[in-house]
Amino acid sequence: MRKEELVCRTETQVRFSEVDSMGVVWHGNYVRYFEDGREAFGDLYGINYMDFYRIGVMIPIVKITCDYKKPLKYGDTAIIETRFVNCEAAKLQYDYVIYRNHTSEVVATGSTIQVFLNEHMELLLDLPEFFSEWKKAHGLIPAGEK
Amino acid sequence: MRKEELVCRTETQVRFSEVDSMGVVWHGNYVRYFEDGREAFGDLYGINYMDFYRIGVMIPIVKITCDYKKPLKYGDTAIIETRFVNCEAAKLQYDYVIYRNHTSEVVATGSTIQVFLNEHMELLLDLPEFFSEWKKAHGLIPAGEK
Amino acid sequence: MRKEELVCRTETQVRFSEVDSMGVVWHGNYVRYFEDGREAFGDLYGINYMDFYRIGVMIPIVKITCDYKKPLKYGDTAIIETRFVNCEAAKLQYDYVIYRNHTSEVVATGSTIQVFLNEHMELLLDLPEFFSEWKKAHGLIPAGEK
Amino acid sequence: MRKEELVCRTETQVRFSEVDSMGVVWHGNYVRYFEDGREAFGDLYGINYMDFYRIGVMIPIVKITCDYKKPLKYGDTAIIETRFVNCEAAKLQYDYVIYRNHTSEVVATGSTIQVFLNEHMELLLDLPEFFSEWKKAHGLIPAGEK
Repeated sequence: MRKEELVCRTETQVRFSEVDSMGVVWHGNYVRYFEDGREAFGDLYGINYMDFYRIGVMIPIVKITCDYKKPLKYGDTAIIETRFVNCEAAKLQYDYVIYRNHTSEVVATGSTIQVFLNEHMELLLDLPEFFSEWKKAHGLIPAGEK
Repeated sequence: MRKEELVCRTETQVRFSEVDSMGVVWHGNYVRYFEDGREAFGDLYGINYMDFYRIGVMIPIVKITCDYKKPLKYGDTAIIETRFVNCEAAKLQYDYVIYRNHTSEVVATGSTIQVFLNEHMELLLDLPEFFSEWKKAHGLIPAGEK
Repeated sequence: MRKEELVCRTETQVRFSEVDSMGVVWHGNYVRYFEDGREAFGDLYGINYMDFYRIGVMIPIVKITCDYKKPLKYGDTAIIETRFVNCEAAKLQYDYVIYRNHTSEVVATGSTIQVFLNEHMELLLDLPEFFSEWKKAHGLIPAGEK
Repeated sequence: MRKEELVCRTETQVRFSEVDSMGVVWHGNYVRYFEDGREAFGDLYGINYMDFYRIGVMIPIVKITCDYKKPLKYGDTAIIETRFVNCEAAKLQYDYVIYRNHTSEVVATGSTIQVFLNEHMELLLDLPEFFSEWKKAHGLIPAGEK
């Protein structure tokens, strides 16, 4: 069993339109940055929205939290670190840390939880087969377990 | 044949998140205000996005223009006046005037053009039946014409 | 001392542009709905962003959480209930419940925390005078206390 | 006098949150893509929003047009080509072409016009000194002219 931490770093430039009248990134836009991070993670590890969609599974967000530490400004680059949080339940959790530019200055941290829905919009209580395989391949399920 | 000008007025409060770092509504948000105007018009006259969708027709925007006259600010209410522009071709044109609050001060004017697509995303060169009927009912097609 | 619960209800129509490719409101847009609720609350009780701004105090969001229960769709109206959460510390907390249309169906719940910054962007550890007065006037600070 | 065409290419990945319920990028988001193009141009040629801001000049958009040719979809990359349009009047015009991925397929074209305002929000009828110098340096004003 491989033991590794699944993490991905991506970056996005702060857009003029994302800055509010206080001169800092409007707090709601961090939700987009988390999404940028999640998508970059999905592309890197082969587990993005479309990978689930193809097997008839949708993965809506059911919970989001964000803690704002420092303001991001126009001209800044947001470095988004997305970390997969392994859990047994049929859900998908990511933790995020956003840094200002390429420094160690943390501007925000947060978390999202997604669940699995089938084509009838019914909640799946078991892991989709595709996701179990993916977890096994990344050493996140001990051999022998389902 | 009735002769009338089809026009609708609606209003929307400027959101904090719509204001940019210059303290005025970010120019891209006027596209949302036009959409608010178009939807209010569609609700009033029975010709909105869903009315077309139900008959298998989609009406994507193919052209937009906006002229900015004065800045809208936080605390302002945008009054959106949407006017149907009658044309023979198979398209849907609206002109917009946005006023600040309930004054005659024009802050922006603009226009959108939409076309008709069938379920295969093919351009319709003739008016959809539903739309012809709608135009007749509002005196926009002379009796006897199709 | 008056004893009351400070709560405000406002509504906002779901915009076409707020709906994502799954046909439901994109999760990030609930942050705007919370803001709509907070602003309506501030207008009603005289404690909005501009009331603080006038005395040189800014009130940035430092934490947000949102739990998604049911999807909001195009055509829905979001009814946003905003509730002031009284706490002794120098912060401003609101809890939110979003209902679908005028039913009792809860589509989301959430919370925001704001802090107070002076003009030098320094954190204020004591309640601004204006806010203390406001709390007293609403029976949120027992008589005799500061 | 150097003779050159001032053009810049940049790219931006379509975000999930930018796609509407018809499965294509919502038309209002092209305004953001134009802004991405304009900012990349400004960074490349030293003429961005902040360069003007430093000399007390603001450059609000006064007109925007966009023609939509083909839909952009989730997973696409928008390649934005921004071209400086030289004109004698005290304004700033850019033309844009957006391509799908790295192909020659044009998905949209458009244009923006910006004017110059001083710190009192008054319209400047002459080119700001900084902008004249910039134009000369790029061969856009014949030698001897102001």
